[in-house]
Amino acid sequence: MRSGDGGPLRIIPLGGLGEIGLNCLVLEYGRAAVAVDCGLMFPETHMFGVDLVIPDVSYLRGLGDRLLAILISHGHEDHIGAVPFVLRDLDVPVFAPPMAAGLIREKLREHELEGRRSVYVLEVGRPFQLGPLGIEPIAVTHSIVDSYAFAFTTPLGVVLHSGDFKIDHTPVDGRPTDLQRLGELGARGVLLLLSDSTNAEVEGFTPTERAVFPALEKIFRDTEGKVFFSTFSSHIHRMLQVIELSRAHGRQVAVVGRSVETSLRIAGELGHLPIAPEFLDPAAVDRIPAREVTVLTSGSQGEPLSALARIAMDDHREIHMRPGDAVILSSRFIPGNEKVISNMINHMCRRGARVYHQNIAPVHVSGHASQEELKLLLRLTRPRYFVPIHGEYRHLARHRALACEVGIRPENAFAIENGQVLEVGADGARIAEPVPAGRVFVDGKGVGDVEDVILRDRRHLSRDGLVLAVLGINQQTGEIVSGPDLVSRGFAVEEETQAYFEQARALVLERLAQITPESRADQFEVKEEVRKVLKRYFAKTLARRPVILPFVVEM
Amino acid sequence: MRSGDGGPLRIIPLGGLGEIGLNCLVLEYGRAAVAVDCGLMFPETHMFGVDLVIPDVSYLRGLGDRLLAILISHGHEDHIGAVPFVLRDLDVPVFAPPMAAGLIREKLREHELEGRRSVYVLEVGRPFQLGPLGIEPIAVTHSIVDSYAFAFTTPLGVVLHSGDFKIDHTPVDGRPTDLQRLGELGARGVLLLLSDSTNAEVEGFTPTERAVFPALEKIFRDTEGKVFFSTFSSHIHRMLQVIELSRAHGRQVAVVGRSVETSLRIAGELGHLPIAPEFLDPAAVDRIPAREVTVLTSGSQGEPLSALARIAMDDHREIHMRPGDAVILSSRFIPGNEKVISNMINHMCRRGARVYHQNIAPVHVSGHASQEELKLLLRLTRPRYFVPIHGEYRHLARHRALACEVGIRPENAFAIENGQVLEVGADGARIAEPVPAGRVFVDGKGVGDVEDVILRDRRHLSRDGLVLAVLGINQQTGEIVSGPDLVSRGFAVEEETQAYFEQARALVLERLAQITPESRADQFEVKEEVRKVLKRYFAKTLARRPVILPFVVEM
Repeated sequence: MRSGDGGPLRIIPLGGLGEIGLNCLVLEYGRAAVAVDCGLMFPETHMFGVDLVIPDVSYLRGLGDRLLAILISHGHEDHIGAVPFVLRDLDVPVFAPPMAAGLIREKLREHELEGRRSVYVLEVGRPFQLGPLGIEPIAVTHSIVDSYAFAFTTPLGVVLHSGDFKIDHTPVDGRPTDLQRLGELGARGVLLLLSDSTNAEVEGFTPTERAVFPALEKIFRDTEGKVFFSTFSSHIHRMLQVIELSRAHGRQVAVVGRSVETSLRIAGELGHLPIAPEFLDPAAVDRIPAREVTVLTSGSQGEPLSALARIAMDDHREIHMRPGDAVILSSRFIPGNEKVISNMINHMCRRGARVYHQNIAPVHVSGHASQEELKLLLRLTRPRYFVPIHGEYRHLARHRALACEVGIRPENAFAIENGQVLEVGADGARIAEPVPAGRVFVDGKGVGDVEDVILRDRRHLSRDGLVLAVLGINQQTGEIVSGPDLVSRGFAVEEETQAYFEQARALVLERLAQITPESRADQFEVKEEVRKVLKRYFAKTLARRPVILPFVVEM
Repeated sequence: MRSGDGGPLRIIPLGGLGEIGLNCLVLEYGRAAVAVDCGLMFPETHMFGVDLVIPDVSYLRGLGDRLLAILISHGHEDHIGAVPFVLRDLDVPVFAPPMAAGLIREKLREHELEGRRSVYVLEVGRPFQLGPLGIEPIAVTHSIVDSYAFAFTTPLGVVLHSGDFKIDHTPVDGRPTDLQRLGELGARGVLLLLSDSTNAEVEGFTPTERAVFPALEKIFRDTEGKVFFSTFSSHIHRMLQVIELSRAHGRQVAVVGRSVETSLRIAGELGHLPIAPEFLDPAAVDRIPAREVTVLTSGSQGEPLSALARIAMDDHREIHMRPGDAVILSSRFIPGNEKVISNMINHMCRRGARVYHQNIAPVHVSGHASQEELKLLLRLTRPRYFVPIHGEYRHLARHRALACEVGIRPENAFAIENGQVLEVGADGARIAEPVPAGRVFVDGKGVGDVEDVILRDRRHLSRDGLVLAVLGINQQTGEIVSGPDLVSRGFAVEEETQAYFEQARALVLERLAQITPESRADQFEVKEEVRKVLKRYFAKTLARRPVILPFVVEM
């Protein structure tokens, strides 16, 4: 191998390949390694009671001193959300774009890690070196300010990581994707491209961020009452458009909701709010004419405790929604949230508001590249090897197929998933031995202690509840001294079903009378019998399968 | 009042107004009443363990002999699904279009009610009389064969119930919506229109059912392997298009999945399958070339036990999905099902199949009228009064606004929800006293016994599990003879947390030592103390709130 000292380059996805969210990918060369992104995922419905999901980063921990940095591509939760959890027991510097750095510092403060970990700010045009790796942040457009791709210069060649991106030629902040630099890299030769697959199923080009402006303007023009506007709280560009529109239509802007306030504060400190808006005190909203007010709020996903959800229920102290008001939900409905968003919209309609959302008006565009942009990046950079990143398997597979359509050789395009390792050497690329990868659940203060067995129990409990059966048994004689007492939760209303439980008790006693006193003195045997009798009875009479918890008190 | 004997006409929605599904609406005049539709709803995620939801029809039961019939507009589950449950203790005749009648008879067989209830078949062009009500079925187009609107001739005027409909000028079976008859009724004067609001938020016209043909044809042309096709099992027209395409492309059709088989069998018996297809034995699929096979399957919503879900996991005995195969999911992704459908698609991609669905190819059109069709019906029938039906409140409100745009006077348009009563007399219309309405949960064999308190318990159990604490206490002395023994489910892995539970036990004993022996001999007081101690401990150490179930055995 030509650059023999470092061995092959290793690409190790720990999250985000085979799923949406949890993005984390390790790039390793010789004794040096960096991780790109460290994101979270919000729990799915089958993850009962789980608050957050983070990637299993035991592989990172195993790297020890060899892990030189965590690089962050941009400030979305699915790229930075796991950082404070991972930094708890891993002291490694974080390098992030300005907005992401601001948001990460906020998180470290909440996790009482402020000042105990290093967060460095990355700027485009300022490449730097970590061990054998040259690292160059490259500007890309996305639905949050300060989004970067990374070019890694290694002894084996250049690896390009796209981050999350779209190719917006008219971005709101005038900072387009740096096509020149990408082209230059392509001209010199890219060894490996890792590229965002989120929209790999979407044909054509993603519209520019400015495409929402006409739809928003029409709503601002047509609305007699207040305009409520909600998008992802980090979507500074979208909010900038609304602030500009409000000024043009003689509306003052009130900001309601902590996440939006935080995001605007950080963006303001970084100079992302060039027009220096004076925000209206929320308490003053009711005192000025409705058509002179815009309310920027959190809660576009219908989060039950968000400002917008509370306003929709008319449960907010200062802000009230009234007939003639308009609501703009300027974001994608994240799968799984549709029902709760729909309920919120119903309440808004009951208040008399007119609600605009992605399904009925062009008030949102995606931040991710569609097929033509993905092909453009592939053609522009002409990589020898290709790995689709950021997506469920369906997206990775589609992106891989696109890459083959534009000239990547099928044997050089790898749809790998979390834990699979791609090794790229001077003599070729191959899938190597996998490493541990997976999901870690955060539940309350517990990180990782809620495992599948516990989720299985919670699911079982959630379906048909639980029946507890307590028996007192004389351990010498096997005599049943008390019980079985049956207590249930989530199974049936006990007061209404006394006769039903009485019958169950009788069946248990009948069965226990049939076994020997020796067996009755054996806790395990008694429990097993009780479980069997009750299980059969509940299934036959009610077709339900509660968790049955027999408990024997020895007397 | 001119037609004084009968009093006002009463419109009483018991389901489907303010929600999607559960459609059931009562029309009452004098001593005569009929119900239109009696549908179910599949449970939402917060309805833990519930199998089905049906409307609360206690109002129907209260009508006694006055309820003359249940009329069915078409055979979808949200219009017929509750019929067997309601007929259990209500012997009232059902009048339904042919396909719906076939499906209802199938259900009565499953519920062991066959032959014990009357199901009459309705034909268009054959109006009939029930007491003072003339009832005329009118052909409409929808995503199932044999869909009707109903015109009710009452002494006060004509009431038109749209059923579910779209206005398809080129339906697959050549039976368009009967615009002439609707226009004729409009010319003579319609008192009240009740009209489907499902798509009231959608601009323009819904495309014809034939619009999916070109997209399907392209897939049939391009696919080298098998074509898997899945739509709602009752969507005979869609399946007819696929059977026709298969013949044109030299593919034999195998039918896999019970619901599709049943639906095709009934449709065949009714003459809805004019081309009399010979279906391929599923066991023979593997024996003939892949490009000569189409597989019609159930499971377009990713239902875990469906044929398609099992095939995707390569867990089907006879049918295997292979590279080169195509899958067409030709239906809307019902909100709440997105995740499970997406997981199924990922598995199909792992099998190497190419998957087509609504988000990436025009392989589905809605069966419901969009705004322009809704306005057309309003203009065609020119009703004096208007009530939007079938939809969440957001849809009803939007539909009401549309009606006002095309000339309905706002004071004559009523966005009412379930249980609200509209009375229409010769002298005007008004909202009257509400009646009981709501949802009844079916859980296993239990109908209506799972109430909100049980769902609350299940939700609580699902979040952080349960901790059982059993204490043996001498009732005379207040001495703690045994325990507390702590047993948990869905809370924490006990083997890994012995020290943690040991600490909890110690805290309970410490607390109980502080209260008087008299208090300790009091079950309720002991339970309360145990609950308090454990609750605080779990919240403080783990930030979790399990269900705590203290149990005292008196010794």
